[in-house]
Amino acid sequence: MPTLATCSTREAADAIERADVAVVPTGSTEQHGPALPLGMDHYAARAFAGAVAERDDVVSLPTIPVGVSPHHMQFDGSLTVSAETFAAYVRETVESLSEHGLRKVVFVNGHGGNVDALSRVARDLRATETAFAPTWNWWDAVDDLADDRFDEGGGHADAAESSLVWHLHEEHVDPDALTDAEAGGADSWGSSVHGATVGFDTIDFTESGAVGKPTQASPEAGADLFDAAASELAALVDWLAARPIADCWQRDHR
Amino acid sequence: MPTLATCSTREAADAIERADVAVVPTGSTEQHGPALPLGMDHYAARAFAGAVAERDDVVSLPTIPVGVSPHHMQFDGSLTVSAETFAAYVRETVESLSEHGLRKVVFVNGHGGNVDALSRVARDLRATETAFAPTWNWWDAVDDLADDRFDEGGGHADAAESSLVWHLHEEHVDPDALTDAEAGGADSWGSSVHGATVGFDTIDFTESGAVGKPTQASPEAGADLFDAAASELAALVDWLAARPIADCWQRDHR
Amino acid sequence: MPTLATCSTREAADAIERADVAVVPTGSTEQHGPALPLGMDHYAARAFAGAVAERDDVVSLPTIPVGVSPHHMQFDGSLTVSAETFAAYVRETVESLSEHGLRKVVFVNGHGGNVDALSRVARDLRATETAFAPTWNWWDAVDDLADDRFDEGGGHADAAESSLVWHLHEEHVDPDALTDAEAGGADSWGSSVHGATVGFDTIDFTESGAVGKPTQASPEAGADLFDAAASELAALVDWLAARPIADCWQRDHR
Amino acid sequence: MPTLATCSTREAADAIERADVAVVPTGSTEQHGPALPLGMDHYAARAFAGAVAERDDVVSLPTIPVGVSPHHMQFDGSLTVSAETFAAYVRETVESLSEHGLRKVVFVNGHGGNVDALSRVARDLRATETAFAPTWNWWDAVDDLADDRFDEGGGHADAAESSLVWHLHEEHVDPDALTDAEAGGADSWGSSVHGATVGFDTIDFTESGAVGKPTQASPEAGADLFDAAASELAALVDWLAARPIADCWQRDHR
Amino acid sequence: MPTLATCSTREAADAIERADVAVVPTGSTEQHGPALPLGMDHYAARAFAGAVAERDDVVSLPTIPVGVSPHHMQFDGSLTVSAETFAAYVRETVESLSEHGLRKVVFVNGHGGNVDALSRVARDLRATETAFAPTWNWWDAVDDLADDRFDEGGGHADAAESSLVWHLHEEHVDPDALTDAEAGGADSWGSSVHGATVGFDTIDFTESGAVGKPTQASPEAGADLFDAAASELAALVDWLAARPIADCWQRDHR
Amino acid sequence: MPTLATCSTREAADAIERADVAVVPTGSTEQHGPALPLGMDHYAARAFAGAVAERDDVVSLPTIPVGVSPHHMQFDGSLTVSAETFAAYVRETVESLSEHGLRKVVFVNGHGGNVDALSRVARDLRATETAFAPTWNWWDAVDDLADDRFDEGGGHADAAESSLVWHLHEEHVDPDALTDAEAGGADSWGSSVHGATVGFDTIDFTESGAVGKPTQASPEAGADLFDAAASELAALVDWLAARPIADCWQRDHR
Repeated sequence: MPTLATCSTREAADAIERADVAVVPTGSTEQHGPALPLGMDHYAARAFAGAVAERDDVVSLPTIPVGVSPHHMQFDGSLTVSAETFAAYVRETVESLSEHGLRKVVFVNGHGGNVDALSRVARDLRATETAFAPTWNWWDAVDDLADDRFDEGGGHADAAESSLVWHLHEEHVDPDALTDAEAGGADSWGSSVHGATVGFDTIDFTESGAVGKPTQASPEAGADLFDAAASELAALVDWLAARPIADCWQRDHR
Repeated sequence: MPTLATCSTREAADAIERADVAVVPTGSTEQHGPALPLGMDHYAARAFAGAVAERDDVVSLPTIPVGVSPHHMQFDGSLTVSAETFAAYVRETVESLSEHGLRKVVFVNGHGGNVDALSRVARDLRATETAFAPTWNWWDAVDDLADDRFDEGGGHADAAESSLVWHLHEEHVDPDALTDAEAGGADSWGSSVHGATVGFDTIDFTESGAVGKPTQASPEAGADLFDAAASELAALVDWLAARPIADCWQRDHR
Repeated sequence: MPTLATCSTREAADAIERADVAVVPTGSTEQHGPALPLGMDHYAARAFAGAVAERDDVVSLPTIPVGVSPHHMQFDGSLTVSAETFAAYVRETVESLSEHGLRKVVFVNGHGGNVDALSRVARDLRATETAFAPTWNWWDAVDDLADDRFDEGGGHADAAESSLVWHLHEEHVDPDALTDAEAGGADSWGSSVHGATVGFDTIDFTESGAVGKPTQASPEAGADLFDAAASELAALVDWLAARPIADCWQRDHR
Repeated sequence: MPTLATCSTREAADAIERADVAVVPTGSTEQHGPALPLGMDHYAARAFAGAVAERDDVVSLPTIPVGVSPHHMQFDGSLTVSAETFAAYVRETVESLSEHGLRKVVFVNGHGGNVDALSRVARDLRATETAFAPTWNWWDAVDDLADDRFDEGGGHADAAESSLVWHLHEEHVDPDALTDAEAGGADSWGSSVHGATVGFDTIDFTESGAVGKPTQASPEAGADLFDAAASELAALVDWLAARPIADCWQRDHR
Repeated sequence: MPTLATCSTREAADAIERADVAVVPTGSTEQHGPALPLGMDHYAARAFAGAVAERDDVVSLPTIPVGVSPHHMQFDGSLTVSAETFAAYVRETVESLSEHGLRKVVFVNGHGGNVDALSRVARDLRATETAFAPTWNWWDAVDDLADDRFDEGGGHADAAESSLVWHLHEEHVDPDALTDAEAGGADSWGSSVHGATVGFDTIDFTESGAVGKPTQASPEAGADLFDAAASELAALVDWLAARPIADCWQRDHR
Repeated sequence: MPTLATCSTREAADAIERADVAVVPTGSTEQHGPALPLGMDHYAARAFAGAVAERDDVVSLPTIPVGVSPHHMQFDGSLTVSAETFAAYVRETVESLSEHGLRKVVFVNGHGGNVDALSRVARDLRATETAFAPTWNWWDAVDDLADDRFDEGGGHADAAESSLVWHLHEEHVDPDALTDAEAGGADSWGSSVHGATVGFDTIDFTESGAVGKPTQASPEAGADLFDAAASELAALVDWLAARPIADCWQRDHR
């Protein structure tokens, strides 16, 4: 089915009528180190949404390109909106969709910094029975595969992300810079002292902006990750399509 | 110059260093009648931003796809966010850019409903000397040409818009439906009684969602409109690039 | 019927019971150049509301004297509130009225800067079926007459406004200063470059604060404008009084 | 000096230059029982502001007519805005004035329900050294005189208020209804049980809306109250005019 | 009955089922001069809540320790939140309780600065029939007794407060400093000029932070005040427990 | 050093002068199953803050007892405030402290649901150089020890939490109910389908409210956990006390 934005009102009426689930790609535009494009996270979100958008039971929405990235602002080109603004933008977008009768939604998310805001939005949308809108993070869907493939603690602009965007947008990746990314990067996300998180920004713990082992990346690994994650997303859509809407809503007081 | 999202941090640093002006495409996803795609307005914004994005003195940002469209919500597929939310989203995005040192911005806007919010944002950004960010509406730039070409009061999904998107995205236009659009449409925007605006939603004055004479549209006219407007935008960028930043800020109390 | 503020609770109960329509005068206190009073816009609003307030089917509310005028703040004496604050103030006032059972309202507006905020308020009030509250701008009601009388592009403290307030409040007009107003003024509102609005404040395009041809003003023309506009307002009230409330509400999804 | 709204920009520049103090009348439009007009509180504020407005060292602003009156909404004709909205409206108005250089302000207040909001506003304005803006309540200024004249616990639409508005606006008072006001009224404000305030609305403790002994009112007493309070206000303006602005600001941490 | 926080879910279910009234202690952490602890107001609130918490028909909530105290910030150690934030915190807490079925609440309040915010919260909670939640201030409950015992205008860290906390927490009181408190203190609260409140902060009228006659304090007087006030609170709970919930809600429009 | 609330202004001045670090205990009041008290999380926070409060270089603030717990509201007795309200409450509290000169803070946190809000607050406080305020979660500090002791995926009211509160407040624990807690509980936190989080509330995946293996709990294990975590907190305070404040602030743009 074509994406919603390509539809006329007539086509949109049909598409929404036929659809069981909407997918809303959410990403960011923020530093991914010297080798990867700033758009990494919204490219990923868009690509995964695209992978299920052909289905007759899915409507796909435009990609939300700027997310919650205040912790990347010391790196050139990073854009951010506050968690409150991002939450409002996606919530109201889904509320619109709900007015047309589509109330099962998947946030196809490419950016970890969006997760908390999306969770709050999803809670609110469910509490008012506007929509049931779980968040799907592609990296969560291929956790085991990434662990098999790469020897990294991972976190940001790592081997998994580098591989994925290399597969999706070879033209926007600079493979020669992966070595610098790793050399100036960190082994694991964050900075902790005696149980307290004391590194609030990525610059606090990585000079290159990367966290993980990007030199282990390859477009082939990216293709595998993409296929595996896309399969999981498809399965999630199947599950959600089959789930009665009444089962989606908030449970009553015990 | 590649768009910002395609840049690595290194490339972004260079691009922002070289650039005089950023362009931020803002649109909407909302009904444009039975013949045109819902994404009309963000397609237009994206296309015009793309027309100047190749310049070395310009950085282009991702397209903001959902705008202020509450008045279209009775039509299938329309999405909207509130004026406050839209304003916050674009303001914070430009604030991010300003942190990296780029403070001249053009909102390349495809949707009339965004104009008030963009004006408020631009005022705020100027008052704090964060950025000077005038709004450029493509239809304002080719007002005379459209008047020459089409015999319509115009307003929405009219001959001018239909032509433009036919030129840009023939694959998303249904020319056969233009007759229905016009037949069920209105001659002019809005509904007024003795000087008062009493039609708050498009449904109040147009059954098809169109306002104007879409049957006069052609892809050739669209190409002409596009070229003319793109030239105007290029001239605006020239003007803004040449203007000293000190002249851009708010004037002192008289 | 006396205005609401003059009524005791008993009289208010009667007045609201008898009334079909409430009028809410909204204006501003902002520069109107060297010849006209800062209160121009709320004087106009008050006067027009007064012109229909005698009717038995109308209740008139107190005049809201400060409006949305950030673009005039470089000129001495201008007052402003933000669009959000103005909107909240008028919305809550109308919500109060609606609690007493009066749900048809006309914003009798004297200031262009209030229009967007009033539109948003009116949309919200209608969406919740609190009130149907179109905005009536006096200048829109006498557009043709003003075009006949004056040779000006018009905009602010122009011949039309000067005439009106000269008619209403001769004691607050300095006719000798009209020449200075025009000499230091602009021919048309705003400042545009290649289709973009680049003059955000009036000081950006007028040194005197006036826009138009105030020297063409006369109290006689003001009287004519007043009478003509007041007739239009009366006709609007007739129309609104006769309109079934059910027809006033937002239309359902198509 | 004429009130601000009557001034042209030139006159406003002079007036603000000469002035030491601005007065901002704040009132409400709310029930004052069967005998008194809803506008009581803003009439009082306007009248007291007027009493000092002639002074060359004073600038008077337009009257804010709707205040914080949620507790009166069960009575016909009462209008209210929330405390937050009222606070924003008056704060932004005073901020405007401060931009023109006038930073000593008196809120000439006619409504008890506004006091808390005005206090919060005044605190904020002082903390940022925008303005020093104490609230003057006319009844506080003539507490002793009212106690001398009337034998009432007082509170609302009582002998003091009735007298004042009878003096100011005889045409809006219905003396015959004062007996009903008192008969259906309460002896003292509020309703308390074992130290807790349990009457949130006036309807909880007065059927007529009045609290006190309105039958003791007379226009003569009103004239006396007016003169006495106006003298106090004049003395306050003298005191404030003479006080160095540096002494007005918030004290440093001890 | 144990306080809510000590209950397991099972015990909470029983406790709420049996209870008629919840008590929510609200205080502050702010200067009370050189002799009394900063926690005075939340200690008082907690102690009074504790005095009724043993009853089977009462559930007591945790003590809210920081209140609305901006006027004390020049004194070391004072903490404050804004009125808006405090209001939201207590309102949402009571909304939670209401979800479990308990809709009669007493705010057992120890701090005068909280009263306005609590009133607004209580109004909102009643308007939506979420809860009926009057505020009980311990000093209002023992006004006469305090007048009998002490010869002071009173206000803050005075003989009454000093006595109470001396009784409750002898270990946190420095009796030797009471003389300094009184010597550097004020006789009455606030600072007024011709009817206007011109002292916004306590530092504006008291150097020690105290207002009243703390040297008259004694732990014995504190015990008497405590017992008397606790009796009043118990009587209030009786009254509220017996009052039908339908009688608690907002009255209809007259 | 005594806790802040117990100090007079004189003692507070000394305490803050001597102190390097403030600790702010943050918890919640929410279901912890049939065996543990609702106050579990604020008891833990209070206890750990108390463990370092004796130090001369530490000032401890009152415990914030209600946190962000919307996901527990189907269970009796759970209280919650929104993330926004909680964030404002703790942010303003720390801002107060900063006004007195103490700008190193540790949020001693007992509730996972507070973490996101605390992170946002800490980011804001650092960005404005108001305070550096990392969050310390006791369970993060003893992760390895808990893994050694218990065989559980863990999450909520599990063996670790049960042990800790059993050690701290034996009187509020019902050991006999631990079996029911575990039998009706879940093995791991949350509910995930193909990489998406679909369980938004605890009731979605645990009938008893517990997640983990509470039957493995013992007061002895709790004592060990407490001591180990308290040592970590002490070490964190040492680290923070020694860290120059300049090193605490946000890093500049790269």
